[in-house]
Amino acid sequence: MQNFTFYNPTRILFGAGRIANLAREVPSGARVLITYGGGSIVRAGTLAEVRNALKDFTLFEFAGIEPNPSYETLMQAVELARRERIDFLLAVGGGSVIDGTKFIAAAIPFTGDPWNILAKRARIVSAVPFGSVLTLPATGSEMNNGAVITRRASNDKLAFMHDLLFPRFSVLDPTKTYTLPPRQVANGVVDAFVHVIEQYLTYPADAKVQDRFAEGLLLTLIEDGPKALQEPENYAVRGTLMWTATLALNGLIGAGVPNDWATHMLGHELTVLHGLDHAQTLAVVLPAMLHERRSEKRDKLLQYAERVWELREGDEEERIDQAIACTRQFFESLHVPTRLSDYGIKKDAIPALVAQLKRHGMVALGEHNNFSLDGSRRVYELAA
Amino acid sequence: MQNFTFYNPTRILFGAGRIANLAREVPSGARVLITYGGGSIVRAGTLAEVRNALKDFTLFEFAGIEPNPSYETLMQAVELARRERIDFLLAVGGGSVIDGTKFIAAAIPFTGDPWNILAKRARIVSAVPFGSVLTLPATGSEMNNGAVITRRASNDKLAFMHDLLFPRFSVLDPTKTYTLPPRQVANGVVDAFVHVIEQYLTYPADAKVQDRFAEGLLLTLIEDGPKALQEPENYAVRGTLMWTATLALNGLIGAGVPNDWATHMLGHELTVLHGLDHAQTLAVVLPAMLHERRSEKRDKLLQYAERVWELREGDEEERIDQAIACTRQFFESLHVPTRLSDYGIKKDAIPALVAQLKRHGMVALGEHNNFSLDGSRRVYELAA
Repeated sequence: MQNFTFYNPTRILFGAGRIANLAREVPSGARVLITYGGGSIVRAGTLAEVRNALKDFTLFEFAGIEPNPSYETLMQAVELARRERIDFLLAVGGGSVIDGTKFIAAAIPFTGDPWNILAKRARIVSAVPFGSVLTLPATGSEMNNGAVITRRASNDKLAFMHDLLFPRFSVLDPTKTYTLPPRQVANGVVDAFVHVIEQYLTYPADAKVQDRFAEGLLLTLIEDGPKALQEPENYAVRGTLMWTATLALNGLIGAGVPNDWATHMLGHELTVLHGLDHAQTLAVVLPAMLHERRSEKRDKLLQYAERVWELREGDEEERIDQAIACTRQFFESLHVPTRLSDYGIKKDAIPALVAQLKRHGMVALGEHNNFSLDGSRRVYELAA
Repeated sequence: MQNFTFYNPTRILFGAGRIANLAREVPSGARVLITYGGGSIVRAGTLAEVRNALKDFTLFEFAGIEPNPSYETLMQAVELARRERIDFLLAVGGGSVIDGTKFIAAAIPFTGDPWNILAKRARIVSAVPFGSVLTLPATGSEMNNGAVITRRASNDKLAFMHDLLFPRFSVLDPTKTYTLPPRQVANGVVDAFVHVIEQYLTYPADAKVQDRFAEGLLLTLIEDGPKALQEPENYAVRGTLMWTATLALNGLIGAGVPNDWATHMLGHELTVLHGLDHAQTLAVVLPAMLHERRSEKRDKLLQYAERVWELREGDEEERIDQAIACTRQFFESLHVPTRLSDYGIKKDAIPALVAQLKRHGMVALGEHNNFSLDGSRRVYELAA
């Protein structure tokens, strides 16, 4: 096992009805800015439920945080929060709303241009405390300290993280996911799946527990992901997926092991230039990535084949091929297409994607920090 | 899944050499009381390493915290800490030292008789902050908020917990476990194993992830437990066991599922009246407990048989018998005997054990809160 530091102070309130417990989690007397996206939490009644639970607080609202939250939008919330002397933020939504709220939390007290938090990894010395009410299990943002923000003006999608940016608490009520559109449910399953893979499918590192936990999360996503589409109001399934997606990226399974994240980096450029959903980009990139890097990932691919897909027949190359095919098939079974062509993206789009990677410094990716732009180009080509 | 709240703010510093990072974890200017047990951390050089890492702090020491730490001993540390205006505690040792330090931390600022923290579950409103340097993987105390304290004068062994009693940090350096006596290594494996079982082997609760995680921990203990005895300086094995034991009781796998803990309660009385090591009591009680309660635990026993022991032959009763036999055999393979008679305890000792359970209110134990004194008596008899 590699040396690691693990720290995660987010309090999880899991279960139906837990929004009612919000008042005792928010500091008394706080001026609270509720942040959210579109109208879905309004239509589902979640916003009203949150407002009611916090009726003794001074509440403000900021709506309109979009998928792949934009710097441009978030800075409007920062201005509102500064003007109204907000001292607590409450994100109500999915990973985009929570990611965006992390940026707002860091930007409010930031001295200088907040874009530097992303572009120059400027040092964060304080952040407004915040919590979340999760409505879309996918990103794990509800229990980690990272966020990804997009600047539309310059086609940048950049990540940042800081220990001050763990949510103080997150409410995970599975019933709040019943009304999600199937596409978002499927995207969430794919997203969580690839989060696990990025921390698991690297090279052996004497980390038996992390491996078992990762495999447990993958097996659970494979079992319950399709069920969530078939039985939207199955509480057990929705609850399992919600907790699985949180555990997929809360630091636990990635502690003490090599991490990859190249699939995410290649995916981000597809979102920025072509507008694909985040999970769609992962479904496209991952099978190609595994194929391209099968020799460096060989040992773990064989372990993945056996323990996750129960593939024990055929020689090693065949089992690896089958495991990659099963992965692709799983995404397709959730109706998330896995080829660039499925999204109308042609091969001639690849040079611009590679140029974006270069501009963002993504020239030595992966668990060995040696996955080059040439490799990335081949992955995009394999994904065509 | 049951509703749950999960919260665990302990920072884990894992790996060889991490004691060197202690200084930045302890509040600057703190008056630190280092608490420990016997001479093993002196002989192994760990105490000197800790002192050196904290050389810029004002250090005090309290030695002599015994296995199954006693109220009588701990109150001496409380007096010392009050006299010297200690504002940070650092436990260096195993679960007993850390448990004892939790009591010291709570008792220092406590108004009234600190015994009431245990006997009357008196409300804790503050605690002195503390960290730990773990030298014996077993109890999970390094990453949870609970402790078990014994009062020798009255033959009481009682538990308490509070969110103020999470260690601020715990250093987990696997090399510090190389010189442990084999009996303590084996005890640690058994202790962690039974911790997992108490949170796993109850009844199905739509908690797929918790089940997979628990099974992963059990499989890992079965694989690496014996290896730690055979190869004491195998870093990978020691590291795996250390992290496994921590995860076995840090709240994660027990969140959202029924918990049992009857085996622990019956075990405590064996320690108090007959002086068995904690893990020895668990090795004695668990196989008998599973046999006695095989019908209420039936579904999970079958799952345990298949997923942990790969038992797929024979009818259901046979598989359950085999799983219990495998469990017993695993403990015996670690040289931890599993019968009361192995420790010289005869059947005529059972009424006194049952009377102790009654005195401590342990009359409705288990995941259904209905496991009676009659059941406990039968378990002790089956364990003879």
